[in-house]
Amino acid sequence: MPPSPTTKPVFSEEIKVAGHIIDSLLLPKILDQIISLGGEFRLHDVQIGHSRKDPSYARLTVSAGTAEKLEEILKAVQQHGGEPVQPDDCLLEAADMDGAFPEGFYCSTNEDTEIRIAGTWIPVQLQEMDCGVVFDPATKSARCVPMSEVTVGELVVMGRQGTRVRPVERDRTRHDAFGFMNSTVSSEKPKHVTVREIAAAMKEARDGHGRILVVGGPAVVHTGSRDLFSWLIKEGYVNVLFAGNALATHDIEQSFYGTSLGISMSHGGTTEEGHEHHLRSINRIRRLGSIKAAVDEGVLTSGIMYECVRQDIPFVLAGSIRDDGPLPDVITDAIEAQKMMRERAQGVTFCLMIATTLHSIAVGNLLPARVKVVCVDINPATVTKLADRGTFQTVGVVTDAEPFLRILVDELRAEEKGSGK
Amino acid sequence: MPPSPTTKPVFSEEIKVAGHIIDSLLLPKILDQIISLGGEFRLHDVQIGHSRKDPSYARLTVSAGTAEKLEEILKAVQQHGGEPVQPDDCLLEAADMDGAFPEGFYCSTNEDTEIRIAGTWIPVQLQEMDCGVVFDPATKSARCVPMSEVTVGELVVMGRQGTRVRPVERDRTRHDAFGFMNSTVSSEKPKHVTVREIAAAMKEARDGHGRILVVGGPAVVHTGSRDLFSWLIKEGYVNVLFAGNALATHDIEQSFYGTSLGISMSHGGTTEEGHEHHLRSINRIRRLGSIKAAVDEGVLTSGIMYECVRQDIPFVLAGSIRDDGPLPDVITDAIEAQKMMRERAQGVTFCLMIATTLHSIAVGNLLPARVKVVCVDINPATVTKLADRGTFQTVGVVTDAEPFLRILVDELRAEEKGSGK
Amino acid sequence: MPPSPTTKPVFSEEIKVAGHIIDSLLLPKILDQIISLGGEFRLHDVQIGHSRKDPSYARLTVSAGTAEKLEEILKAVQQHGGEPVQPDDCLLEAADMDGAFPEGFYCSTNEDTEIRIAGTWIPVQLQEMDCGVVFDPATKSARCVPMSEVTVGELVVMGRQGTRVRPVERDRTRHDAFGFMNSTVSSEKPKHVTVREIAAAMKEARDGHGRILVVGGPAVVHTGSRDLFSWLIKEGYVNVLFAGNALATHDIEQSFYGTSLGISMSHGGTTEEGHEHHLRSINRIRRLGSIKAAVDEGVLTSGIMYECVRQDIPFVLAGSIRDDGPLPDVITDAIEAQKMMRERAQGVTFCLMIATTLHSIAVGNLLPARVKVVCVDINPATVTKLADRGTFQTVGVVTDAEPFLRILVDELRAEEKGSGK
Amino acid sequence: MPPSPTTKPVFSEEIKVAGHIIDSLLLPKILDQIISLGGEFRLHDVQIGHSRKDPSYARLTVSAGTAEKLEEILKAVQQHGGEPVQPDDCLLEAADMDGAFPEGFYCSTNEDTEIRIAGTWIPVQLQEMDCGVVFDPATKSARCVPMSEVTVGELVVMGRQGTRVRPVERDRTRHDAFGFMNSTVSSEKPKHVTVREIAAAMKEARDGHGRILVVGGPAVVHTGSRDLFSWLIKEGYVNVLFAGNALATHDIEQSFYGTSLGISMSHGGTTEEGHEHHLRSINRIRRLGSIKAAVDEGVLTSGIMYECVRQDIPFVLAGSIRDDGPLPDVITDAIEAQKMMRERAQGVTFCLMIATTLHSIAVGNLLPARVKVVCVDINPATVTKLADRGTFQTVGVVTDAEPFLRILVDELRAEEKGSGK
Repeated sequence: MPPSPTTKPVFSEEIKVAGHIIDSLLLPKILDQIISLGGEFRLHDVQIGHSRKDPSYARLTVSAGTAEKLEEILKAVQQHGGEPVQPDDCLLEAADMDGAFPEGFYCSTNEDTEIRIAGTWIPVQLQEMDCGVVFDPATKSARCVPMSEVTVGELVVMGRQGTRVRPVERDRTRHDAFGFMNSTVSSEKPKHVTVREIAAAMKEARDGHGRILVVGGPAVVHTGSRDLFSWLIKEGYVNVLFAGNALATHDIEQSFYGTSLGISMSHGGTTEEGHEHHLRSINRIRRLGSIKAAVDEGVLTSGIMYECVRQDIPFVLAGSIRDDGPLPDVITDAIEAQKMMRERAQGVTFCLMIATTLHSIAVGNLLPARVKVVCVDINPATVTKLADRGTFQTVGVVTDAEPFLRILVDELRAEEKGSGK
Repeated sequence: MPPSPTTKPVFSEEIKVAGHIIDSLLLPKILDQIISLGGEFRLHDVQIGHSRKDPSYARLTVSAGTAEKLEEILKAVQQHGGEPVQPDDCLLEAADMDGAFPEGFYCSTNEDTEIRIAGTWIPVQLQEMDCGVVFDPATKSARCVPMSEVTVGELVVMGRQGTRVRPVERDRTRHDAFGFMNSTVSSEKPKHVTVREIAAAMKEARDGHGRILVVGGPAVVHTGSRDLFSWLIKEGYVNVLFAGNALATHDIEQSFYGTSLGISMSHGGTTEEGHEHHLRSINRIRRLGSIKAAVDEGVLTSGIMYECVRQDIPFVLAGSIRDDGPLPDVITDAIEAQKMMRERAQGVTFCLMIATTLHSIAVGNLLPARVKVVCVDINPATVTKLADRGTFQTVGVVTDAEPFLRILVDELRAEEKGSGK
Repeated sequence: MPPSPTTKPVFSEEIKVAGHIIDSLLLPKILDQIISLGGEFRLHDVQIGHSRKDPSYARLTVSAGTAEKLEEILKAVQQHGGEPVQPDDCLLEAADMDGAFPEGFYCSTNEDTEIRIAGTWIPVQLQEMDCGVVFDPATKSARCVPMSEVTVGELVVMGRQGTRVRPVERDRTRHDAFGFMNSTVSSEKPKHVTVREIAAAMKEARDGHGRILVVGGPAVVHTGSRDLFSWLIKEGYVNVLFAGNALATHDIEQSFYGTSLGISMSHGGTTEEGHEHHLRSINRIRRLGSIKAAVDEGVLTSGIMYECVRQDIPFVLAGSIRDDGPLPDVITDAIEAQKMMRERAQGVTFCLMIATTLHSIAVGNLLPARVKVVCVDINPATVTKLADRGTFQTVGVVTDAEPFLRILVDELRAEEKGSGK
Repeated sequence: MPPSPTTKPVFSEEIKVAGHIIDSLLLPKILDQIISLGGEFRLHDVQIGHSRKDPSYARLTVSAGTAEKLEEILKAVQQHGGEPVQPDDCLLEAADMDGAFPEGFYCSTNEDTEIRIAGTWIPVQLQEMDCGVVFDPATKSARCVPMSEVTVGELVVMGRQGTRVRPVERDRTRHDAFGFMNSTVSSEKPKHVTVREIAAAMKEARDGHGRILVVGGPAVVHTGSRDLFSWLIKEGYVNVLFAGNALATHDIEQSFYGTSLGISMSHGGTTEEGHEHHLRSINRIRRLGSIKAAVDEGVLTSGIMYECVRQDIPFVLAGSIRDDGPLPDVITDAIEAQKMMRERAQGVTFCLMIATTLHSIAVGNLLPARVKVVCVDINPATVTKLADRGTFQTVGVVTDAEPFLRILVDELRAEEKGSGK
């Protein structure tokens, strides 16, 4: 396309995109981005696969009126897999201080990424959004590094050049929840089917094909689901647990007093002095030194934390400013807690988030886009927030924690009996 | 108490209050009302029952600076059972036109009420809030009458004089949901106990000690609870059903197409043309003339409406301006629908409202305060609105319709097996 | 593409699509639909406009394994403007009864539609979703007809054949709210800009380039926005008002008693007897016969309804089963109310819906997709529901009614002063 | 009352209660508690003040079947000001370890409390809920101590004996929001009046009669209210600010890029690369060392944090696990952050919480009940949670942050002009 004399788009670059670019809507999104950012495009070559399984391919020239505009467009389309036909190596700059990147650093997404070094594409490890990427010349490897952890002298990737993204392609052959990313099962839609699919995914993971992370809020205990949740741990459906002081405290309170925040778990009424129970529970554990000590000494004999200790399931309890106590196991420093969660989240393939906004968003930030995420909350806003903040692969289920867990456990039991229902 | 010379409250009346005035908080509420409305009181006699079962009694003089203020206070305390020690007969005035009361008419509440005629207290029948009260000299009876139904010449009670209210006393001996009126089981509290209590109340009613009204919204079908709900009807747990065009339409759509608003009830996905299913379903029933005709002709063979027809359960489908069609059984006139609901609600002792704001509030308006009301909705605002608009006896349960019904049915089945759980 | 011997898609049809098919995402959506419904496609010809303003064009063959599947796909893609290259005339069948269509009737959407009669495309009038289409041979015209209004002998369009849709193309050149359909301004996003755009659209309409419909719920009065809303009417920003008994009643209650549902509009506290005010207000209007009579007789002297009467703004008050009274102006029959709203909505170009779920959805159902709709509600679910039920063009603004109206009025005042802000 | 032989309540204690026990509902609540906890009472002496201003007095014997039951009842009624007629001194026990109390420690509420030492009532300082109380014999003073801060050897108050509570009495003479504790101004009620009262309270505090703490969430920036909030700081309406990394980051992002989380604050649309802005903003501040350094070096020249630095307003930025970066000023350790907030909250008389659940609850936990708290959130659940967790004095305002601040600023400006509006 010859640029018109009046609105001269003189800066241009040729890009290509491959894969399921039609049914994953990658190509249309790229074209759409170019236009809405004020650029133009010329399609040179579109090879569309005849059937759903055949990958497609497109090559096009993007042009814009200024170099900055072109750069902005290229950055945008990169998120959908558009990459330069003739790429350059990435640019590196040594960090000039600890705990902060040089200005202009490449800012990571949660999609699998590669950087080009000496003509070779190197996959970035520990993929995580909102990090920088550091290249280690000794091992010829690259990894995502959070801002607070970069150290002087590390080689930081700068700008977009020489980077490319491999977006997760949604599998349109599957008609289940996971086939449609960022879908939300609203409070007005049938959830039974979705729960069955979650059960199947968890079963598959437990049977050796994955690793399950569960992130839970205190409502898991308040709503009376503690025993259901404990069953999941006992039966091997939880490989690692992330929670806060509240979930663990109310779980332990229920063991010690039969209440949760002072509400009786057997008759649902308030108990006098009940509001003190959580505090006395924390105090007792603090006197013993740790949750594990309380289990070992026979003081704590049931519940979620008890099962974690017994089954040797690693857990991270992250602190927050609204915590009482807290329990001695709580990591009160937010950056330390993130570091521990990051470490424990390695290898996770499936993440179930129940009834917690803060922890869901925090954990969502740490997970690569390829991890399946299911977020269960009675408040639709929690699910929306999670997706808004970049964890777009989330399948949201707007429902109540207790019945969700009840039906999930029923499904898993049915599967175990081989009925498969 | 000698009125101070500066703020002379010269208008006064002696009132009494009896019953469980301490633990039902009636006396304190009365004192509180007097003071916050700017009046004063002098307690003459307080006899407080020694144990919870013994009724108490209090006699006091209320005074205020103006006659209007005094009247306002007396009206307020009357709602809590405060009545004049030496009452007058009520005042009557003949309606001067159809469909409207004389100005100054007595405005009813949903608490049981009596009016005083020739020295005798007569109970008001068809108790309902926001009506007038009409006295029939022929039968010496009184009844609540909605504004639109009063006819010229009927004797309408005017003002507060000669009226008294018998407020429902909450039973503090019971630690269950119904012992505490206007309680709400929030999304953060254990619901299993409450569902068990609801099941017990429904069992009791079914076994001959009551009459159950269920009010349902279309989410009962959308969430995949149709079969659970049908089971309730089949097993005798529903004596009368109030709903709208949407619930019936989506129920029938599921019978005809296996979808609800086009969403598949088996795999949860959308189906192409699915959005047309509800319209085609309505059209088909319209062609046959009625839901009953569709059942009789073997066209409609499953679901909620089918079970209602088969079990001969009366239903009222009330129209709304967002209805498509509507189904031929829908009463499109709001006043006619109210009249029919009013009639069918007679004798109801227990009302379960599921997933509908409009119908819940409409039905709540028609029920006397003595009817137990349980309102189940995933949105806490629905429960709050119901109580705000006067149906204060509502026990609200903030949860999802499908799992609520699933657990309710499980409980009822367990009770039937005699396990009683 | 030669169909493979195993999964034989032998049924096929050639379709075309024209317009801004890339940046309006029409083509990608069509391809996506074909694949997700299990069909296949072969692109013959894609002419993509070089700049945003140039229309594009595509021609492709759609194939599927069964005739039913092909029909389903063609129906789906038709909603995005895909139409047969060699179309047939539409099929007509005479209605065999009043109030119901023949089975298999064409079911309308809210997008502008045409039907093909004797080789000529005829635009369908009174476009509205969920209706049938009736052709009048005398006038050679077609129009949407609701199910309840079809009469014996009218010629009803059957199936998809010979119909085509002209989807509204979103204007990607505009960066404002209306350029992006079905966008929602969440509670977490800046709203000032959106309010300014709404003000501009209303200003434009008032100045002779449109017709403004406002749909309001009672919260407009409860939240204390009555005077702001009255100002809009007085200044010509409302051409027609749709509401229910509640809005009008509370507006009139505020005029008569200074309260809304018994809450004082000046000090925000409850007033004793206040709960009776709305009932006494209705009764008084009923005694006078109509709202207009109350204005004419000097009884009603301020507020929303008063301004409507004074400015001769047509209003439709639609009844619901939760109405008290109702006011004599309320149309209690839902079908009659729909008919009146349909009539009054003719020519509307801009619709502002404030704080009402029921009326918003009802009115959304009646409006063609080309009408700009802004839905303001503090509850995000209302906006979501509206879009879910087909009024996809809605711009949702999640905010509080009173401050929204305050800022809107400020903007309009500023525009009037020519400051334009 | 002679205890009946069958249900022998043999354990009893005489208590008294004084103050506005009728209109503050203290006496009724006490009687109610006794009965609902299964105890009995005998009223010996009730002296009821004749007018609202005169305090009342009651003396009664409480009895129960077991010593434990009696203790439970006495504990409950103590919260409403019921105290033993002949009290004992409180019991003290030396802490046997750091960071945990002896089991059986007295658990504080947020109401002003006194402990009895050698016959003298000593007020407890640093009143805060969910702490222990430590007595210092050297200074004869007592103070609340969080569990994590108690050290070996400190004298900890044990049990309820020798403690008494002075509940805040609500002032029924005031008809404003603060006269009615734990009231919530719902989304359906007029808010203008409430905002005016908040403005008046803030004006009063600024003019030397109080100290204002503002707790803000990032939505203050997202919704476009940054300049309004900055104005409050500049004009002296904020004495101390509590927030998190997000509010400060998005405020600084708006200064640097004109966006908030990538959303343009001028046109409301998304900007490409915008999601990186917050990260680049944090990185830049980290490179400079602190927010103050950024202001001093002329890098940060507008906004909330800028005004805090310029006006020398102390702020606490508390960390959370969902933080990116964080900014160098953020206190990442939750316990350290609590300690700092506790210190900075001393002397606060008025607390305005806007659009943050986590920080609102955390700060609510630290404040004594006598501090006026206003919580503004578009989500009613936030307000409810705050009250549920013990900050019962909260006045909740369900509305949108931006218009709330706009109207608040308008009111304050009007007050300043002496118009008082």
